Amino acid sequence: MRNLTLLTLFLVAAMPWLAGAEDPALTKRQLATAKQLMEMAEESNEAYNIVESLTTEIGPRLAGSEAEARARDWAVKKLRAMGFANVRVEKFEVPFWIRGVEQAEIVSPFPQPLAITTLGGSASTGPEGVTGELVAFKSLAALKARADDYADGKSEDSLAGKLVFVDETMTRTQDGSGYGVAVAKRRSAAYEAERLGALGVLIRSVGTSSHRFPHTGQMRSAIQEGAPGAPAAALSAPDADQLQRALKRGPVKVRLVLTPEALPPAESGNVVAELVGSERPEEIVLVGAHLDSWDLGTGAIDDGAGVGIVVAATKLLMEQLPTSPKRTIRVVLFGSEEVGLVGAKAYAERYADDLDQHIVGTESDFGAGRIWRFDTRVGEDALPAMAEIAEALRPLGIGPGHKEATGGPDMFFVRKAGVPVVTLGQNGWDYFDLHHTPNDTLDKIDPEALSQNVAAYAAFLYLVADTDASFR
Amino acid sequence: MRNLTLLTLFLVAAMPWLAGAEDPALTKRQLATAKQLMEMAEESNEAYNIVESLTTEIGPRLAGSEAEARARDWAVKKLRAMGFANVRVEKFEVPFWIRGVEQAEIVSPFPQPLAITTLGGSASTGPEGVTGELVAFKSLAALKARADDYADGKSEDSLAGKLVFVDETMTRTQDGSGYGVAVAKRRSAAYEAERLGALGVLIRSVGTSSHRFPHTGQMRSAIQEGAPGAPAAALSAPDADQLQRALKRGPVKVRLVLTPEALPPAESGNVVAELVGSERPEEIVLVGAHLDSWDLGTGAIDDGAGVGIVVAATKLLMEQLPTSPKRTIRVVLFGSEEVGLVGAKAYAERYADDLDQHIVGTESDFGAGRIWRFDTRVGEDALPAMAEIAEALRPLGIGPGHKEATGGPDMFFVRKAGVPVVTLGQNGWDYFDLHHTPNDTLDKIDPEALSQNVAAYAAFLYLVADTDASFR
Repeated sequence: MRNLTLLTLFLVAAMPWLAGAEDPALTKRQLATAKQLMEMAEESNEAYNIVESLTTEIGPRLAGSEAEARARDWAVKKLRAMGFANVRVEKFEVPFWIRGVEQAEIVSPFPQPLAITTLGGSASTGPEGVTGELVAFKSLAALKARADDYADGKSEDSLAGKLVFVDETMTRTQDGSGYGVAVAKRRSAAYEAERLGALGVLIRSVGTSSHRFPHTGQMRSAIQEGAPGAPAAALSAPDADQLQRALKRGPVKVRLVLTPEALPPAESGNVVAELVGSERPEEIVLVGAHLDSWDLGTGAIDDGAGVGIVVAATKLLMEQLPTSPKRTIRVVLFGSEEVGLVGAKAYAERYADDLDQHIVGTESDFGAGRIWRFDTRVGEDALPAMAEIAEALRPLGIGPGHKEATGGPDMFFVRKAGVPVVTLGQNGWDYFDLHHTPNDTLDKIDPEALSQNVAAYAAFLYLVADTDASFR
Repeated sequence: MRNLTLLTLFLVAAMPWLAGAEDPALTKRQLATAKQLMEMAEESNEAYNIVESLTTEIGPRLAGSEAEARARDWAVKKLRAMGFANVRVEKFEVPFWIRGVEQAEIVSPFPQPLAITTLGGSASTGPEGVTGELVAFKSLAALKARADDYADGKSEDSLAGKLVFVDETMTRTQDGSGYGVAVAKRRSAAYEAERLGALGVLIRSVGTSSHRFPHTGQMRSAIQEGAPGAPAAALSAPDADQLQRALKRGPVKVRLVLTPEALPPAESGNVVAELVGSERPEEIVLVGAHLDSWDLGTGAIDDGAGVGIVVAATKLLMEQLPTSPKRTIRVVLFGSEEVGLVGAKAYAERYADDLDQHIVGTESDFGAGRIWRFDTRVGEDALPAMAEIAEALRPLGIGPGHKEATGGPDMFFVRKAGVPVVTLGQNGWDYFDLHHTPNDTLDKIDPEALSQNVAAYAAFLYLVADTDASFR
């Protein structure tokens, strides 16, 4: 790629003011540079190469596993080779849960296997498994109501000796909002079933695929004192349909064998790398993705794509700008996101005293679809500056969004601590077809869409790191 | 549904002659009746209900298994309840092979699991499995050339201690012709690998899906005297891609554990039911589908759909025609198709002396897509009559096809014995996305497309059974 210096000098004179504010936060030069960065990013396949490398050379990388440790080594080596500063692993401990055997079958009246996967953190049925009649609930709410009635003594009927089937469906949405609704079932069904004394619980997968892939994902807690929950697994959509058809014909007995194990806490860690600011290095622009993945697929869209996007975007700035942006851009590849934002918590605790110096935070963790919307959560005073950035992103097909951005899962704790966040919102229409399934593999990524993401991140990171504006 | 008698009388006068031949094989009355049957079929969901029942109440039904026996019981009960005549099971023995454990993983340099499934008839690696370096071949032909060179002494290099990977891809086609090319790899790779002394063989699945489903299917022979073949499994497409990426980086070692078993021969059978001809009952119109399925899915498109289509079409004639067609329509739900056309062979042997009385044969065994083409293989003299039938099917969007129809897999032996056959060719564009995978489930069937199939079969069966024409 070309070095930006000379080209920028020529272009600056021709650039109109894009921002509507009277006293703009961004200069003509900055906007011209952002434009050039976007063009370069769209011509580059750096992000794709990074995901290709991670998903091939590591593959699945479960939180706490030896494979996640290999992923940290991979990341450190790669980031150092690229020329990032202060590359380091910040270790922490994580509850280490492994999957074991997962089998289910209709025992009667129509013997046949079912496609299931154990939910993360689930208790074990023991190797002999459990067999019981299936009791179906349309929703988590219906199950909870039944458990409440039982707890209150309004009902005498426990579900002792039975298996629960929660058949709530998930709505397909572009912005992923359907997940927030549906995921409550995955998080809580095991505990509600346990309150009723059930042998185990099967849920229709939290996902939108019609293919025969069950979707895994974490329950409320990997370790719940005194209430481990009923052993819990997710059914693929075709298998949930099949159970409904069977239940229409009469009672259905199912056998469930899940032998997950909660092992002693294991080592995990966040991999941190920086592009040190040229004027105010103590001010941090935080950009994240997560390095761990579920164990079923190779974690291409969740979240190899995010790793590729944020690393490639920051590398582009490092390589193409004549001078680093004023503020430090800190890339954090979080560990153990999937099992409960464990790396995000460790980060927020470690940097608790520095969070007031965190200018803004964001994470790429919603697959590899094109970015279509720019959401923010910043101080009222900072909205005009954010509007200028939104305007700069428009040529990528990105529209303005709302003011209640989450910043992504791993921004949870820093956001709670007051760090402003933005979300470069990806098109997640198909994301939950693949999410947490064996089918999350590299071939599902469109390299052009990935490059559009890099373009947006490169421009965004450059502008927030180089402007003098604050976003509190 | 209405009875056809009165309506037919009113419509006959208005019907033009559709056929171009000077001395047409089909009467105006027959053509008008066929048209009404098509309309009725398109309004009915009988076929869908049959597939729903079979895939729910039986599910997977591997050749020789207890589940296949349950499927025969299901069929006999259903066909008798519908009013078919001469409903019977014609038993035969089948080599009984069961799947066992199937696991593969990259051992080095990038440890991770691979999604595979054992090929039908494969030998076992033993429970300890085999581990070896992977040697890739672009095609079966390349593997065979290497094996020939070794056998001829042109090369000294065996593949002892190694694993073969055959990475030939399959072409997506509407008429399924891509399968005929690609399936040679599945049939023969194990035996070619064995000639080179390899520990085992992995093939890219014979299929067109990009999802992480490996496709099973039978090898050349379930029992091959003295040459059982190397233990053989199919990789999903994403896993074959993954191995290629790993191999680009250097040597790859894989562990393969397959523990299938060849058990003593088991009982299988064809289920036969008839609509007895009103004038020449000894003349047989043979219409088939197969009752067995692979063990991974519920056999909805392969071949629950075919069962639904041919049963519903014949039932429609039985219920709606005031008089049965002149010739007998014999529905045969073949057993053990998947493991080598065992039921088809048993049928051809049992009826060897009656095959000259088989007027025409056809099978529905290519999924649930709409029929788009009418292919034939009949005597030259019979072509005008077939053209009249083709013309009658046109309103369903079915065009004329070629003259080299196979009639479907289970027509193989009767066709070889001289029985004329036709193929009501379905659109198989997506068929090999699902074929022989766990993903072959009911939700993949479009009820409207299924009804179009029933309409075509109903019209076809009626016309060939009621005409006086011969097709030899």
